[in-house]
Amino acid sequence: MQTIEKKLRKVIRDVYDFPKEGVIFKDITPIFKDAHLCEEIIDVFESEFKDLELDAIVGIESRGLLFGFLLANRLKIPFIPIRKEGKLPADTYKQSYNLEYGQATIEVHRDAFEPGARILMHDDLLATGGTIAAASKLVEKMGGKIMCFAFVVGLDFLNGKECIRPYCDRIYTLVDY
Amino acid sequence: MQTIEKKLRKVIRDVYDFPKEGVIFKDITPIFKDAHLCEEIIDVFESEFKDLELDAIVGIESRGLLFGFLLANRLKIPFIPIRKEGKLPADTYKQSYNLEYGQATIEVHRDAFEPGARILMHDDLLATGGTIAAASKLVEKMGGKIMCFAFVVGLDFLNGKECIRPYCDRIYTLVDY
Repeated sequence: MQTIEKKLRKVIRDVYDFPKEGVIFKDITPIFKDAHLCEEIIDVFESEFKDLELDAIVGIESRGLLFGFLLANRLKIPFIPIRKEGKLPADTYKQSYNLEYGQATIEVHRDAFEPGARILMHDDLLATGGTIAAASKLVEKMGGKIMCFAFVVGLDFLNGKECIRPYCDRIYTLVDY
Repeated sequence: MQTIEKKLRKVIRDVYDFPKEGVIFKDITPIFKDAHLCEEIIDVFESEFKDLELDAIVGIESRGLLFGFLLANRLKIPFIPIRKEGKLPADTYKQSYNLEYGQATIEVHRDAFEPGARILMHDDLLATGGTIAAASKLVEKMGGKIMCFAFVVGLDFLNGKECIRPYCDRIYTLVDY
């Protein structure tokens, strides 16, 4: 039987020069076409994290909404979207962070979870870790306890793990490049 | 037992003056915190559409990715994201449409589905229908057969149903305002 890692390596495709020249983008969209592989991803995440007594899954817009919501549904716990500035309608907390050029801001609803909630942080892909580190800062400010990070893909050469380790050192990726 | 409509009416909240003054925004984020209600939504969609022999679910970025992906996972069929311009990395087809002020463009991967595929179109909320009509045009150009539309919320006073009926008259909403 193939491991999930091998299956993912077959399906994830390289797109050259996206979003800009010289970058090789790991495109995970083909995964969504394979319902059985999606199910298997959730099986693996579930068995990896079932001991953590999680209270909620946080997923980062946009692609982090996908497996984040699916996992929350499987574990029967709340799903909390973290979105780009200006998208969430009710009262929010914000967190800004630096990009290569300029700044970005993310938001979460103030009533998203109770202080002390045990949180899994999810995005589809861990690159430099800037966005998910900002999300983690936001979650900690609100009193959330970050129990683990779960990604489908990790880009090891960008050292994202070092960026998020201060928030929690349980960092799980299904496939690394 | 409460109907799903009644449950949704309790959970969906009105946010005044979002995204601009005078608008009352229907915020569905509280639904995501209720894992059992999410499951029930998928139960209802599944039983409503199981006779359609669907080949794929199309979901519109961003909030349409959530229940769209969950439903695809339940039905064990592919999920196809339609995204804002510049987000999908591989070769795409584009469709532009008019907004109140200016234009917007959405994209889908060219290899998203085969011609003749039986498609369910999903977004969280049906407002004027402009975006999902553009998405439907795109799907039809690619040879997809639109079998139905599924929304969580419909805003009847904006007449979105009239806008999308030319693509398919099976339009399903869980709760209407």
